[in-house]
Amino acid sequence: MTLRSVAVVGSGLLGTSIGLALQRAGVEVRLSDTDAAQLRLAVDLGAGTPLDPAAPPADLAVLCVPPSAVAPALAAAQRAGLAASYTDVASVKSAPAAAAARLGCDLTTYAGGHPMAGRERAGAAAARADLFDGRAWVITPGPTTSPAAVSAATALARACGAVPVQMTAVEHDEAVAAVSHAPQLLASVLAGSLVDLPAAALGLAGQGLRDLTRIADSDPALWADIAAANAGPLSAVLAGLATRLAAVAAALADGPDRAALLATLGRGNAGRALLPGKHGGTAPTFAVVSVVVQDRPGQFARLLGDADAAGVNVEDLRVEHSPGHPVGLVELSVRPEGASALAVALEAAGWPVHPAPAAR
Amino acid sequence: MTLRSVAVVGSGLLGTSIGLALQRAGVEVRLSDTDAAQLRLAVDLGAGTPLDPAAPPADLAVLCVPPSAVAPALAAAQRAGLAASYTDVASVKSAPAAAAARLGCDLTTYAGGHPMAGRERAGAAAARADLFDGRAWVITPGPTTSPAAVSAATALARACGAVPVQMTAVEHDEAVAAVSHAPQLLASVLAGSLVDLPAAALGLAGQGLRDLTRIADSDPALWADIAAANAGPLSAVLAGLATRLAAVAAALADGPDRAALLATLGRGNAGRALLPGKHGGTAPTFAVVSVVVQDRPGQFARLLGDADAAGVNVEDLRVEHSPGHPVGLVELSVRPEGASALAVALEAAGWPVHPAPAAR
Repeated sequence: MTLRSVAVVGSGLLGTSIGLALQRAGVEVRLSDTDAAQLRLAVDLGAGTPLDPAAPPADLAVLCVPPSAVAPALAAAQRAGLAASYTDVASVKSAPAAAAARLGCDLTTYAGGHPMAGRERAGAAAARADLFDGRAWVITPGPTTSPAAVSAATALARACGAVPVQMTAVEHDEAVAAVSHAPQLLASVLAGSLVDLPAAALGLAGQGLRDLTRIADSDPALWADIAAANAGPLSAVLAGLATRLAAVAAALADGPDRAALLATLGRGNAGRALLPGKHGGTAPTFAVVSVVVQDRPGQFARLLGDADAAGVNVEDLRVEHSPGHPVGLVELSVRPEGASALAVALEAAGWPVHPAPAAR
Repeated sequence: MTLRSVAVVGSGLLGTSIGLALQRAGVEVRLSDTDAAQLRLAVDLGAGTPLDPAAPPADLAVLCVPPSAVAPALAAAQRAGLAASYTDVASVKSAPAAAAARLGCDLTTYAGGHPMAGRERAGAAAARADLFDGRAWVITPGPTTSPAAVSAATALARACGAVPVQMTAVEHDEAVAAVSHAPQLLASVLAGSLVDLPAAALGLAGQGLRDLTRIADSDPALWADIAAANAGPLSAVLAGLATRLAAVAAALADGPDRAALLATLGRGNAGRALLPGKHGGTAPTFAVVSVVVQDRPGQFARLLGDADAAGVNVEDLRVEHSPGHPVGLVELSVRPEGASALAVALEAAGWPVHPAPAAR
C-alpha cells in the first residue's frame, strides 16, 4: 500500500526522524507531543504540521513513546479515531502488546514495530531524515492483527528507507535481548569492574578493552527502562552468559583445563563468523593494509588521497592510536585482489606500509 | 645505562621485532632460535647476526619464548654465560619467575619484562621495528633483582621506543587479567553465544555487538596458553564478572529492580571514564561531525581532503556501515573549537553533514 498521511504521536528523536523521512518521501505528516516545545522544534525542523484533532483519520498512526507508554497511547489514539491502522517504535514488543490487550485496545488494527536505529542523543534536535536508511525495521503482527495493519506498518518502514523484517513479538524480544540488550549490560559490567583497578593497571589497557566498553558510555536511565521492559528474555540471556563465564573461571582454577579453554575460544571464532557483514550479507573477506601515520594535520587526507590515486577502493578503515605516542596505525580494508597494488602504491608515495598477507 | 649488545633468544614476532628496533637504535643484536628457518628469516630481515657462542657476554639477553619456556631458557642462558643481565617478554610474570627459582636460576641478574604490543600474526615474517613505539613495556623486578638488571631491562624498553613501567609480577598479572585476558574471554563467550541464535536474530545485530566481539576472532591456541599461564588472577576476575552478571540477571527477574540496573549502568559510565585516552593521557573531549558517505570509490579520500582543506585536524575517525544499504556514516572527531567550521566547510563542499552539538 502507499501511505498518504501518517500521524506521529511523540516528536522525540524517532518521531521527528520518521517525520523528516516521510516528508522526504512525499507523505503528509501530522505531529503531536505532550511537550509543546518539542512539538514546535519538530515542526520547525520540517518534520510535519501539528496534528489537527478534527482532521479525518490518517492512514497510519505511529506511537513514538517509551515502551511503558505504548498501551495507553494506543488506547487514547483509538478512542480519538486518529488513524485506520496503528504501529509503534518501542524497542520491546511483548509487554506493550499485552498491556494494550489488558486496556481493551482493538488489536486488529495494531502491528508492533521496531526500527533498528538510534543515536546516543535523544530529542527532536538529534533527528535525521536518514536515520533509518538501510536499517532493519522489525514488524511484529499479533495473532489478530489485520493484513491492512501489517501492510501499513510495512509501508512506513519502506517509506523511511528501512528494510522491513517480520517476526513475532516473542522472537523479537529474544533476539534483541541476545544481540543488543545483553551486550549493553555486559559492556557496562566490564567497564564497571575498572572502577576497582589501580591506575597503573588502567594504563595497560589496549584497544580490545576500549572496543568492549565503548557502549558502556550509554545513558543509564534509557537502558534501565529498556532492560526492565525486556526483563524476562534479557535475564535469561544474562544468566546464561554468567553461567558460561563461571564455567571458564572454574576451568582455569581446575588444572587449568586447556581443552575447555580451547572450546570456549573456538566457539567465539564460530559465533563471530555468523555475524552478517557490510551491506547485510555474509561478511566479505577483506585484506588489510596497515600504514603508520604521524599525528599531524592532513595525514589522513593525504593517505586516503594516495589510496584513491592507486585506484583501489577502501572498503573500511580503522585507526589505532599508540598510547603515549603521537603515532597512529591506520588499517585500510580492501578487496584481497587490490591489496598488493595498494601497498606498492602507498610505499612508493613514502608511507611506511605493513601489508598483512592473511586476509581477515 | 646504554646497551651496546643484546642477545635475543627466540626469533619469532617479538624477538625479531626487538632485533629490528635495536638495530634501528644502533645496538648490536645477536639472534638465536631453535628453528633454523626462523633464525635465517630474522637475520635476512636485518634483525641482527646469528649468536656466536664463543663471543663475550652481551650486556643483556632477552628471552623471547612462551611463558612456560622462560625458566628453562633462563637456566640455559645463565649456564652459557650469555649476558650480564637477563629479561624476557612473556605476557605473564609470576609463574616464570617462580619456575626459575625452582630451577636454581640466579634471580639477581633477571628482571622480568612484558611489552604491551603484539599482532594477530606470529613469526619473524610479521615483525616490525615500530611494534613497540609508544607502547607500555612493563618491567617486573623481583625482591633480589639487582639495580643493574633493572637498568638493562629499562634501557631495552627505551631503545625499542616503548615507555617503561615498573610494577611487581603479581601487580602485572592481576592488571593484565583485568584489562586484557578477561576481556578476551568475555568477548569469546559473548560471540560463542551467537552460535545458538536463529539467523533472523543475527540479522538485527548492530555495531555495538560487532565492537564487543571483534577480538573473539583471536587465535584459540595462543589465548588458551595465555589464560592457562595466568589462571589464578584471570579465574578470579572472570568469577567476579560472572557474579555481577548473575546479579543483574537476578535484578531483572526480581521486580525488575530498577535501582540496581541504574547502579550497574552508572558504574559502567564511571569505569569507562577512567580509561586513559589517546596519547596515554586523560581522554580528551572531541566533538564529532558525522557525514553520510556513499559506498563509491574515492569517497573517503574526497571527504578527508575536504576536511583538510578546511584547516581542521581530524583527530580520529570511525566508519559505521548501515547493514543492507550501500551507505556509511563517517564520524570525524575534532577538537570542539573546530567542529562548527568543519561542518560548515563540508556542507559547502556538498556533504550531508550531521554536526553533533554535544562533545563526547
